[in-house]
Amino acid sequence: MIKIAVDAMGGDYAPKEQVEGAVLAIKMIDDIEITLYGDETEIRKYLTNEERITIVQSDGVIGMGEKDPIFAIRSNRKSSMALALSSVRSKENDAIVSSGATQALIAGAHILVGRMKSMKRTAIAPLIPNVKGTSTILLDAGGNIGIKPEFMVQQAYFAKVYAQEVLNIKEPKMGLLNIGSEPGKGRELDQQVSKLFEANENINFIGNVEPKEILDAPCDILISDGFTMNIAMKTIEGTAKGLGKILKQELKRGFIGKIGMLLSARNLKNFKHRLAPEDIGGAMIYGLKGVVVKAQGSSRSVGFYNAIRQAALIVRSDVLNKVKTIIESDVS
Amino acid sequence: MIKIAVDAMGGDYAPKEQVEGAVLAIKMIDDIEITLYGDETEIRKYLTNEERITIVQSDGVIGMGEKDPIFAIRSNRKSSMALALSSVRSKENDAIVSSGATQALIAGAHILVGRMKSMKRTAIAPLIPNVKGTSTILLDAGGNIGIKPEFMVQQAYFAKVYAQEVLNIKEPKMGLLNIGSEPGKGRELDQQVSKLFEANENINFIGNVEPKEILDAPCDILISDGFTMNIAMKTIEGTAKGLGKILKQELKRGFIGKIGMLLSARNLKNFKHRLAPEDIGGAMIYGLKGVVVKAQGSSRSVGFYNAIRQAALIVRSDVLNKVKTIIESDVS
Repeated sequence: MIKIAVDAMGGDYAPKEQVEGAVLAIKMIDDIEITLYGDETEIRKYLTNEERITIVQSDGVIGMGEKDPIFAIRSNRKSSMALALSSVRSKENDAIVSSGATQALIAGAHILVGRMKSMKRTAIAPLIPNVKGTSTILLDAGGNIGIKPEFMVQQAYFAKVYAQEVLNIKEPKMGLLNIGSEPGKGRELDQQVSKLFEANENINFIGNVEPKEILDAPCDILISDGFTMNIAMKTIEGTAKGLGKILKQELKRGFIGKIGMLLSARNLKNFKHRLAPEDIGGAMIYGLKGVVVKAQGSSRSVGFYNAIRQAALIVRSDVLNKVKTIIESDVS
Repeated sequence: MIKIAVDAMGGDYAPKEQVEGAVLAIKMIDDIEITLYGDETEIRKYLTNEERITIVQSDGVIGMGEKDPIFAIRSNRKSSMALALSSVRSKENDAIVSSGATQALIAGAHILVGRMKSMKRTAIAPLIPNVKGTSTILLDAGGNIGIKPEFMVQQAYFAKVYAQEVLNIKEPKMGLLNIGSEPGKGRELDQQVSKLFEANENINFIGNVEPKEILDAPCDILISDGFTMNIAMKTIEGTAKGLGKILKQELKRGFIGKIGMLLSARNLKNFKHRLAPEDIGGAMIYGLKGVVVKAQGSSRSVGFYNAIRQAALIVRSDVLNKVKTIIESDVS
């Protein structure tokens, strides 16, 4: 049995969607057991089936807009997020899924789960939808400031194993997000990383990729430092949000327009759905001693279920040990 | 009379749209004269009215995909772009408008127009549409690598004067594009720039702005270094392009969907129009001895006309001298 810790109290619609997502996961996936960390009374309101589900009472919640995530974790050791994270460190669970505040989860994972010895820097890698109907890994979207080129190679290894094991891509293609497509573009960091990737037999490097191809990238993994990729990821989010508003403003103009919009309602919903995190799953935090998956804060039950499914798949395919092997055998 | 040099051969649809845009500009704006630089035979195919328009024969064109823009300019001194740029340096013209390759235009402007003495770094500042129906200045989108915080202050002054004179905003609000909205976020550069902006009475600084608000920003000017803003700008472009494709894929599904799409056709066109560069105009290159405006490579005649209108407005409102005054009186 794969044991999954669920932070039931983190997220915009917690604990309802988290609990319903867990129940759905139990129904759909045979080889998992779930422990829900949170307020038992609240959880029970939505718990329709207790099969393979345990509840552990927590005390306190890490807020979504936490300004000082490290302090929040340190001073809330009994919170649902902290208890769930600690249960992975102690091996009570194999993985944790949380849709709580990203920075708190990253900080908490560092403190309570711990960094994998062989990996020098953690990273967070969301999946974004693309024009082809599949998804692209963005790495590192966590906003880490300053990184050495060699550490980005380790992160690339992790993404490669992840893409192979979880996304079923045999030879994942890796692209460097950069301001120009020609070799030699970008900052000192980009040029150094390019050289390391180019020379590395373990990495299927296709070169620079410009962000104007970001939703139609010719690669499976798009990599940059934490600052740049965080800017890019949030720009995608902001552009999608802004364009959605502008589209709505325009579509509902005039009588004919309103009818057209009504007839298109189903398709517009599908459009929105393709961009939603629901079917894509969560973002894995790379480089920890355990499996930590961040589901979107706005996750509904299906989205949260998908993140649980993803976490189970990561455990089942033994991603962490495979990453360890590739990093430790790295003689480059 | 305001004298405008037009690079008639640069752009995806040159010279047709450039020439038609120039003719439109002459019709709409009374106080301008235009010199078209390009192949006279080609230009005459589209020139329906010669009033206040002169043609100067050029030799050679700077390609849109030029890999080495500095070399391209240096070895094509008789090209339409080079001749048009030089005419601004020699004061034959007050401004130049080109939809040729961005990096070649920036490099060419450096070499042939020259940098304004008091400004240490040039920058390129496109306007992007926003949810409110106005536009936001992105600065610096040119991909410059490495910049000192003090130089960003000068660029901010330029953007301020531009926003006041050209966009008619009395007290332009300035935001720093950053990975978090709280003070202290980001790289060393971001923190230093924040402090300088904060302490500067000439800058109406509202603090950090996250890219997830990029199309609905609470400011008129969004600033960052050239690498970061270039990534952000191209990510907006890539996301818009990608979402457009996904929207189209989804909208035309099914019979009802197709009818809805037909009825929405006019509104979808308006939507596309709002995002197009057409009504927004070009991107000014800040920090030169003359007025250089880059129109989008894909500009049609109306878009190109708007860039000419913008260039005329920049000259008419004496932006360059006003910037000089504010920079030179800066005692901070």
